[in-house]
Amino acid sequence: MTATLVLLRHGESTANADGLFTGWTDVPLTPRGQEQALAAGQLLRASGLRPDSVHTSVLRRTITTADLVLSVLGRDWIEVHRTWRLNERHYGALTGLNKKEVRARTDEATYRAWRRSWATPPPAAHPGDLPPWNDPRYAGLPPDAWPLTESLRDVTARLLPCWNDRVVPELLAGRVPMVIAHGNSLRALVAHLDRLRPDEVENLNIPTGQPLVYELDDFFAPVRPGGRYLDPETAADEASAVGRQ
Amino acid sequence: MTATLVLLRHGESTANADGLFTGWTDVPLTPRGQEQALAAGQLLRASGLRPDSVHTSVLRRTITTADLVLSVLGRDWIEVHRTWRLNERHYGALTGLNKKEVRARTDEATYRAWRRSWATPPPAAHPGDLPPWNDPRYAGLPPDAWPLTESLRDVTARLLPCWNDRVVPELLAGRVPMVIAHGNSLRALVAHLDRLRPDEVENLNIPTGQPLVYELDDFFAPVRPGGRYLDPETAADEASAVGRQ
Repeated sequence: MTATLVLLRHGESTANADGLFTGWTDVPLTPRGQEQALAAGQLLRASGLRPDSVHTSVLRRTITTADLVLSVLGRDWIEVHRTWRLNERHYGALTGLNKKEVRARTDEATYRAWRRSWATPPPAAHPGDLPPWNDPRYAGLPPDAWPLTESLRDVTARLLPCWNDRVVPELLAGRVPMVIAHGNSLRALVAHLDRLRPDEVENLNIPTGQPLVYELDDFFAPVRPGGRYLDPETAADEASAVGRQ
Repeated sequence: MTATLVLLRHGESTANADGLFTGWTDVPLTPRGQEQALAAGQLLRASGLRPDSVHTSVLRRTITTADLVLSVLGRDWIEVHRTWRLNERHYGALTGLNKKEVRARTDEATYRAWRRSWATPPPAAHPGDLPPWNDPRYAGLPPDAWPLTESLRDVTARLLPCWNDRVVPELLAGRVPMVIAHGNSLRALVAHLDRLRPDEVENLNIPTGQPLVYELDDFFAPVRPGGRYLDPETAADEASAVGRQ
């Protein structure tokens, strides 16, 4: 018996549109991002897939995306789980900075490592400078668990408890969970599912607003490596665009 | 130490606007209902109250209201719990019928009892005729628990497990839960909190979109009976309007 999992990166946010390192900054969707979310809902509806639960980060770009997708699906009533463990990667001292400006004053290899590598985190933030300090949504997070910066490996480590303790039990019970998250938290999850090597992860791009479906076998290995985008052509185009950024 | 609870009836739905017995029928908010939800969010924001969790029914008029309120509050990320136990009263064979038409072919005492009384349910639906039959949101509900009609007493009986097992533990932990529900599920809850007699419940009306705050003492008795509307004048006007329907 295979288990079915739906992954979705939130629609375009104002920070995506402005070319900023966003990370844990809480920015809304753009009107285009809202349309992407509605279109993702329509793709899911047409596919006949019926998510039984939705897992989002605690950032509003995934939450609004989930609300819009579920509204189109007529499944607003399904179980909702929100967790900081699905948040975007914490970009440390780069948070809020313009990608082009950072690129202009950094050598290419360093810039690429900060953006794409498995194990290199960006420079750390100073405690008190950046979100989530004093943000009530993180009030339950022990201070020593708050990141000051994160590599993709760090993201994987804090994401896996959500995957193992919340999502996997649903898959084992025959439910269809939907994970609506971010470019890098989804890269981390996909790398885990597809057992990617660090160099493969560097070239992995997840497009915004494109539902990605994984069928997992009894060993939780993907029946088709990389999963299946419901709209493979558009997803491939948008993934290349992400890669070129 | 007092515990703080926020109650809110969803904004106007299309069925409210059309004067129908709605019950478990899943209807959307009207544009006016969406504005009421946003205004309720603004009242809550101005009050300084910060809900830690939101409990809704599985009907989209409470879910959309919650999404809009939390968006205005900047608290989209709080814990979400949806349950059929907070659904509107099941109106049995009256579901979907026009209130004026039902009134025209029913004597006044019967009509009033169906609408307002504590213990008299409307005529039962035929199994298979009405929601929730075949609706996937009730797939987990054993068939012998599906109502064919409900009195307010029946609503209280199915609502209390949500109150006792989900909401009360949060209050005891010092959290501020927000319950976004329906005219009759909130009448049932308020009657329980205020220990109302059946004749008092008949005259109780809950206006749409008006946040109602209860402070509860160590015995879970309201510090002020009837709670406190954040906008008492508008709430009183709208409650009278509900009573005149």
